[in-house]
Amino acid sequence: MPIYKAPVEDAIFLLNDVFQISRYNNLPGFADATPDLIEAVLGEAAKLAEEVMQPVNQSGDEEGCIRHDDGSVTTPKGFKEAYQQYAEGGWMGISAPAEFGGQGLPETMTTVVNEIMAAANMALTMYPGLTQGAIAAILTHGTPEQKAAYLPKMIEGKWTGTMNLTEPHCGTDLGLLRTKAVKQSDGSYKISGTKIFISAGEHDLTENIVHLVLARIEGAPAGIRGTTLFIVPKVMVNPDGTLGARNAVSCGSIEDKMGIHGNATCVMNYDGATGFLIGEENRGINAMFVMMNEARLAVGAQGLAQSEVAYQNAAAYARERLQGRALTGPKYPDKPADPIIVHPDVRRMLMAMRAFNEGARALVIWTALQGDVEHRSPDEKARQAAADHMGLLTPVIKGVLTDQGFANAVMAQQVYGGHGYIREYGMEQFVRDARIAMIYEGANGVQAMDLVGRKLPRDGGRALQAFFAEVQGFIKENGDDAVKPFVAPLGVALGHLQQATMWLMQNAMAKPDNAGAAATDYMHLFGRVAIGYMWCRIAKAAQAKLAAGADARMSAKLVTGRFFVERMLPETATHLARIQSGAGSMMELPADAF
Amino acid sequence: MPIYKAPVEDAIFLLNDVFQISRYNNLPGFADATPDLIEAVLGEAAKLAEEVMQPVNQSGDEEGCIRHDDGSVTTPKGFKEAYQQYAEGGWMGISAPAEFGGQGLPETMTTVVNEIMAAANMALTMYPGLTQGAIAAILTHGTPEQKAAYLPKMIEGKWTGTMNLTEPHCGTDLGLLRTKAVKQSDGSYKISGTKIFISAGEHDLTENIVHLVLARIEGAPAGIRGTTLFIVPKVMVNPDGTLGARNAVSCGSIEDKMGIHGNATCVMNYDGATGFLIGEENRGINAMFVMMNEARLAVGAQGLAQSEVAYQNAAAYARERLQGRALTGPKYPDKPADPIIVHPDVRRMLMAMRAFNEGARALVIWTALQGDVEHRSPDEKARQAAADHMGLLTPVIKGVLTDQGFANAVMAQQVYGGHGYIREYGMEQFVRDARIAMIYEGANGVQAMDLVGRKLPRDGGRALQAFFAEVQGFIKENGDDAVKPFVAPLGVALGHLQQATMWLMQNAMAKPDNAGAAATDYMHLFGRVAIGYMWCRIAKAAQAKLAAGADARMSAKLVTGRFFVERMLPETATHLARIQSGAGSMMELPADAF
Repeated sequence: MPIYKAPVEDAIFLLNDVFQISRYNNLPGFADATPDLIEAVLGEAAKLAEEVMQPVNQSGDEEGCIRHDDGSVTTPKGFKEAYQQYAEGGWMGISAPAEFGGQGLPETMTTVVNEIMAAANMALTMYPGLTQGAIAAILTHGTPEQKAAYLPKMIEGKWTGTMNLTEPHCGTDLGLLRTKAVKQSDGSYKISGTKIFISAGEHDLTENIVHLVLARIEGAPAGIRGTTLFIVPKVMVNPDGTLGARNAVSCGSIEDKMGIHGNATCVMNYDGATGFLIGEENRGINAMFVMMNEARLAVGAQGLAQSEVAYQNAAAYARERLQGRALTGPKYPDKPADPIIVHPDVRRMLMAMRAFNEGARALVIWTALQGDVEHRSPDEKARQAAADHMGLLTPVIKGVLTDQGFANAVMAQQVYGGHGYIREYGMEQFVRDARIAMIYEGANGVQAMDLVGRKLPRDGGRALQAFFAEVQGFIKENGDDAVKPFVAPLGVALGHLQQATMWLMQNAMAKPDNAGAAATDYMHLFGRVAIGYMWCRIAKAAQAKLAAGADARMSAKLVTGRFFVERMLPETATHLARIQSGAGSMMELPADAF
Repeated sequence: MPIYKAPVEDAIFLLNDVFQISRYNNLPGFADATPDLIEAVLGEAAKLAEEVMQPVNQSGDEEGCIRHDDGSVTTPKGFKEAYQQYAEGGWMGISAPAEFGGQGLPETMTTVVNEIMAAANMALTMYPGLTQGAIAAILTHGTPEQKAAYLPKMIEGKWTGTMNLTEPHCGTDLGLLRTKAVKQSDGSYKISGTKIFISAGEHDLTENIVHLVLARIEGAPAGIRGTTLFIVPKVMVNPDGTLGARNAVSCGSIEDKMGIHGNATCVMNYDGATGFLIGEENRGINAMFVMMNEARLAVGAQGLAQSEVAYQNAAAYARERLQGRALTGPKYPDKPADPIIVHPDVRRMLMAMRAFNEGARALVIWTALQGDVEHRSPDEKARQAAADHMGLLTPVIKGVLTDQGFANAVMAQQVYGGHGYIREYGMEQFVRDARIAMIYEGANGVQAMDLVGRKLPRDGGRALQAFFAEVQGFIKENGDDAVKPFVAPLGVALGHLQQATMWLMQNAMAKPDNAGAAATDYMHLFGRVAIGYMWCRIAKAAQAKLAAGADARMSAKLVTGRFFVERMLPETATHLARIQSGAGSMMELPADAF
């Protein structure tokens, strides 16, 4: 059975040493997040993940969810108990407002915890993960009454949440959606339609499920600006908070999928179900974006999570599997063969995963801290800068971390050789589970277009300029001998990103297909630079710690960072060449030539 | 259900126009392969693949193989009937010698046919695929009696074959193997041991199975030079050719795998089974290499095959799925949305798959023709040059075509969005099936080391020099305006490959880890150059055909080739940078740091 050890030490190093979380103590909740508390919280999260959630990950995949004839869904054995421990531990609301029963800690803490949970059991973690997205939407757009009715139960983990966007004929293009909402005399709406691919849409973990449903009010304008968001509880909630009658929403079927078998992906039928408007009429997409942005960051972290757990298993296997001899002569002459970790090509894979994971974790935490600033800072300028950062980095994190997270799961499987293909070893499950993260919450091509088409030009390119200024500033201030081996290649990579940006400015206005043709490469080029910048900051912090005393873990950081800048940063040149080749050959063939 | 249309036209264009197969008419069997016959053979192969094999591909995956308590194995519904049609059509032996019942056509024809069959149904095609490898080994190393006893039945498709190498504790490092062979007074051997991961090891398709088993004769030297190859029939063959008693070999279990569920991957138990020496004592690995090289090319073609069928389905979906509008304005204003093929990012994926598939198919056919020259030419120098080519290109084709074939299956799945993750659409099966090709017949890291560590230095680098000379010669001879847009970037890429080679020569002798650290990148760099060269030859042939008259298919070739050189060739720069970074950061950490 696969192993997993939560990267608590690494997260603590990033929070305390690299990003110095104490600098944010002016924000609500941060003063509570002392080094001791961080260690205690992450230690508890690690325990739950390693001892409760991970042990039912493989069996959950084998067993899957079962839908019964009455529309109810049973989750795999052990999921309910594990979820209960999660809820009782208060994990759903560690960052939620205290007035609704949360602990008010930084959202960054939730982000770190979610990586750990998702690595241990991705399918199970999706149930609370979607709930946290729904909580965020209700917090932002709900009325005081809605908040009072739903948030305490959700934050307590008694109820879960879902997001209902996709319909059979529309996923990316939500303007096409058909689910109808008809206003009733009491102000509520009757919701009718079919939603598909609804993760956690039905299950047996909680007594109620709060569906957030995008629908079209009778007479609304066509397209995305005619969609409205509704709260549709599975079981109606009485004014006194007790549960009432079953609402007319049901699970019509569950999908037979490639992976995440432990999470029920439902077709949800709304047959005149009672729904309550949340946010403004015809502005549903705005309300939904709160959930979606939250979810996109979480999905990026899922990519990292699968990469991390896959890496850990590959490393353990590589240390133990005996096969062949080191090219430099036997390392263990007394054994029949050397462990395969002596082979450079095995090291190549392990180091690539490790360098990505540690850098990507930094990127996630750095961005999560900006999320806290955006939501909690009293300083308007700081909030705006943080919002810019979030807007710019969210598609990068979603797209790059899930593409690479999947690629790394495949790489980890490769380290196992033939055993990687056998289900019992668990490596192929990481591949199958990680695969969905590239697709849901906006396929990665959509993320790339969001970055290039919306986030770059927004506000005259303000967000991008701020990012460039920060990275350039760091390069300039850290040109000294110690960090130079890191910042010098970062400067080259940043130059590629700037050239690519310039090319887009000059070539995409007149010919928009040039933007579309460049988008995915631009996103990955951006991701390399962003993670490269993270490695520079990690290296600086590691050097400072090393100067204060020997620490093998910090030396390993420097080696891993060198691997990143030597072997992974140079890809920026290829991305730039592709971007500059434009849309010509890509778009030239007529559709019927395919 | 997924679709598949065999790329018969493309294969004919490559055989006749690009590689001018008629130039080989001096070789046995080639004069028979007239354009008419090629078209007829491939047309029949397409029919069998599309109408018989492909329709049971998805159901075969769902159903899988079942092992019964008596050790017998039932293949999925329809497999037996499809196999019978394959056998009755004579497909097993279209290139086999006429004296054993084959049709004597070029091996190149078998290669083209195998791509088609593997695209239609990879799991099913593996049964005859392994048989063809076993036939090749017996043809090369068998005694006349062995040939007479086994080949006619195998070529007729009445019996299948397997290769038994891997044991629980050894895959790549076969020197560790423990299966024992004890000589008997009648000259036969008793074979005892356990083999794992034996594809097609047991099934219900045929009345007998001919196992080729690598074992160690009592008292043999340790290591790989103490291994011997044996023929171990499942059912003993009487002197008159009829079947006798059951041999003491049985299937102990079948593996629960990620994919290729229609092929039984068996644990084979040899309990004093009767075996017959094939080839020389303690030279088993030499005999096995005949099968392995045959199999490696076939596995490379499997990668291409999965990429091709996945691409075809993605293209069909992209033409039909309506979602969003073209960046340049609605293309179908009368429809609710445009088909997603209008989006550059979808085109990017389709063109990348297409450019790879057509170039890789050329590479496979070019190399298969060299295989025919190696085995059939009366000219010793030509045979040697062809053998050099085969040695050099076999690991490249195996490694590059399966890595990219898998990546393309993932890309094709991505085009489907959420539907790609649902089993019913069939796209995730291509991903799961394609995944094994990167692992079996030598994991791709092993291919890379074979290329860099063995094939490059062999005979003073003769094979590589010949490859460089051919590509350089083509670039020099075709510097004119028409092909220039193709040969100019190829020249750059070739330069990178030559620089990488030079770097290896200068840095790998003193420090072998530098070779290991470079191997995978070198293999992919080589693959890019080789496929780039193919695209130059395709472009030249297409231009000649276009000059002789308009042909939309030939114009499409030029566009697709441009996409390859503009967007896929530039990756060579990144590979070179990685290679030149050496083994330093890769090997520096102690094993316990992982």
